Amino acid sequence: MPDTANNPNRKSWISVPTDSDFPIQNIPFGVFLTRDDVITIGTRIGDIAIDLGALHQLGYFNEIPLTDDIFLQDTLNDFISDGKKTWRLVRNRIAEIFDVKNETLKNNEEHRKIVLFTLDEIEMQLPVQIGDYTDFYSSKEHATNVGTMFRDPDNALLPNWLHIPVGYHGRSSSIVPSGIPIHRPKGQTMPADASEPVFGPSKLVDFELEMAFITTDANLLGEPIPIEEAEDYIFGMVLFNDWSARDIQKWEYVPLGPFLAKNFASSVSPWIVTLDALEPFRTDGPKQDPKPLPYLNYKGKKSFDINLEVDLSPENGAPTTITKSNFKYMYWNMSQQLAHHTINGCKVNSGDMMGSGTISGSTPDSYGSMLELTWKGEKPIKMSDGTERKFINDGDTVTMRGYCKNDKVRIGFGEVSNKLLPPFNPKKVKK
Amino acid sequence: MPDTANNPNRKSWISVPTDSDFPIQNIPFGVFLTRDDVITIGTRIGDIAIDLGALHQLGYFNEIPLTDDIFLQDTLNDFISDGKKTWRLVRNRIAEIFDVKNETLKNNEEHRKIVLFTLDEIEMQLPVQIGDYTDFYSSKEHATNVGTMFRDPDNALLPNWLHIPVGYHGRSSSIVPSGIPIHRPKGQTMPADASEPVFGPSKLVDFELEMAFITTDANLLGEPIPIEEAEDYIFGMVLFNDWSARDIQKWEYVPLGPFLAKNFASSVSPWIVTLDALEPFRTDGPKQDPKPLPYLNYKGKKSFDINLEVDLSPENGAPTTITKSNFKYMYWNMSQQLAHHTINGCKVNSGDMMGSGTISGSTPDSYGSMLELTWKGEKPIKMSDGTERKFINDGDTVTMRGYCKNDKVRIGFGEVSNKLLPPFNPKKVKK
Repeated sequence: MPDTANNPNRKSWISVPTDSDFPIQNIPFGVFLTRDDVITIGTRIGDIAIDLGALHQLGYFNEIPLTDDIFLQDTLNDFISDGKKTWRLVRNRIAEIFDVKNETLKNNEEHRKIVLFTLDEIEMQLPVQIGDYTDFYSSKEHATNVGTMFRDPDNALLPNWLHIPVGYHGRSSSIVPSGIPIHRPKGQTMPADASEPVFGPSKLVDFELEMAFITTDANLLGEPIPIEEAEDYIFGMVLFNDWSARDIQKWEYVPLGPFLAKNFASSVSPWIVTLDALEPFRTDGPKQDPKPLPYLNYKGKKSFDINLEVDLSPENGAPTTITKSNFKYMYWNMSQQLAHHTINGCKVNSGDMMGSGTISGSTPDSYGSMLELTWKGEKPIKMSDGTERKFINDGDTVTMRGYCKNDKVRIGFGEVSNKLLPPFNPKKVKK
Repeated sequence: MPDTANNPNRKSWISVPTDSDFPIQNIPFGVFLTRDDVITIGTRIGDIAIDLGALHQLGYFNEIPLTDDIFLQDTLNDFISDGKKTWRLVRNRIAEIFDVKNETLKNNEEHRKIVLFTLDEIEMQLPVQIGDYTDFYSSKEHATNVGTMFRDPDNALLPNWLHIPVGYHGRSSSIVPSGIPIHRPKGQTMPADASEPVFGPSKLVDFELEMAFITTDANLLGEPIPIEEAEDYIFGMVLFNDWSARDIQKWEYVPLGPFLAKNFASSVSPWIVTLDALEPFRTDGPKQDPKPLPYLNYKGKKSFDINLEVDLSPENGAPTTITKSNFKYMYWNMSQQLAHHTINGCKVNSGDMMGSGTISGSTPDSYGSMLELTWKGEKPIKMSDGTERKFINDGDTVTMRGYCKNDKVRIGFGEVSNKLLPPFNPKKVKK
């Protein structure tokens, strides 16, 4: 089943602004609430959201074997579960429907009114029900920076790091879409000069610039996914902000890893960009030395050239771009991550999400967290309004963007943008 | 809403064998497949399973505000979401229906045929769809044993342990009910005298004797659950075997905690015993010194006296009881665990599962894992068939049981019993 949707020469009858993340070659998938208070699965071209549930009801997908309600759902899990062949058929068909040469929907005003929405008429939702969320730690630069700051600069990487795509389980229930504000967490910390821990709001709230991939049902319990098949089970990718409280993390994380320092919130961009749409942007990954064990050996280009950047905006203030990084810097690629995750037979389901870990480049202006950018707060960042930041202040908004670009097409992810609020008001409303 | 279901003097018209875990005072909740291939929510008295979906359709719960299909589901999540008041109304009503003095159902042969099943007519399922699974590390004896073996006997507990109910996120997708066999995981390990990691089946597969509690929807994202309210959000408990691969764990776990060493499988007993049924077995917990921070301070008896034991059975061989422990040994109780888990605003949903961590007592015959019982394999266990075990062999079955008992009533959990199979045959069947 060839992917015809990413033909770079195709144009749409929906006008696409210059430098839009969403040309007709993208065709991402998301879930939104419409102006009529209906939840539906949709896609986007330019600044127009398209109701796939309505399109399907109107018969536009009749040639594709789909259940009647596949798009009339509040998550993409069932559609993702249908598998790669179906994803391609649907993307190819959407490309046809909106091709500038196809006048069927274009000339049907009644249908267009039902199917098309401007962005202010919809409210984006979390695109999947996330069964399990895993976070990897796959940027060598990030792991080296953290190891240098907290352990030993001469042995910054732990002995397993070059052999294993190190990962751990995170919390699914606290993952929210772009736009949802996040409360500064409270918790237990051990101040540098104290002998007893103290309780209060975290003083070191940070972002982590990550991307995450979303899987389909991949295996039986007990059954590993071979690395050469791994990409068949990856539906697509989103931007991922793994909010972190560094002071809570430092005190709690031995020996079982980060817990409350991370599970107060993570946020994602709402449009899942398919691996098919990213196909033109494959690139070689970093050389891996030592050579990984055979189950982690891969052939071909398994990395993707995705430009990433983070803006920090004070309350009512202008944004400052504080870092520019790239997904291609990741030492371990997604195929290696998924093959490793399942080598022991761990079950992977539709809608599971796997984060890359913080994506830092090799230069200080490409680091993926405040911890690294300000080097533990030693080098504060200058904001465009004249203030400084060591970590994130109440009222600040963190916005991450990502896009791929070549001479023919730009495929982007939109943004994940969330504001940090003061700690939750403890006046509890009982259920 | 008083709980009348655990009146210790009540008898049922269903006969209950001596020393059954399931007298009419228990009334646990589970999900099963019936002889007619229908999935339903049910309970159990003695050796009779009761179809609550059918009972509800026949009108036996008419006085309780329940949706029509609340029991005709394949998970308990929606029922648990209805909250503590509803759980009590339903348990109290079940106690009435099956009270020896109540002849309505007892004398209605037609209804009895629809509602009652012998155990060989049903197949127990996972009782909840587990959104997120957390594992704590709350036995001081277990943490001390592990710290002694792997770090420093003089500083076995890490500095945070007495201040924090240390926990981490585990994998929901690999949790299976009693009866499902588990494959020995493969993975990467670093042998003691090697300079490079090797790949192969784990040589050190272990069980961990745990219990887990199941929550209802408890809070908004950002909102902590005060410790004095924590038990209102705990539906009930199950036995929990947190299967572990010690050699994989040792190599992978720094700095982010256990991952593939644990997520190949965990197994649970299928009947959830409610906190209400455990009420007569409250007991004081261990003295906590130093005194925890105020958000972890509790009043009253928050521990439960639950006898636990583990049998190990070779393929076609007789079982050997290899340890006897008790849930009351836990240093941190469930209220403290849930208050800690949410102090940063982490969202807790209906069906979430939280494991206690390995429950070890103070004596070597009460340790909760092979790692501790055989002290890293240095002191093999003698089996009743004359063989020895350092860890778990292919073909072995691990069976955990748990029960509370006083002079009037015994409330038990049944068992979680799973066989260890050789590694998965790699002949992959593509979806």
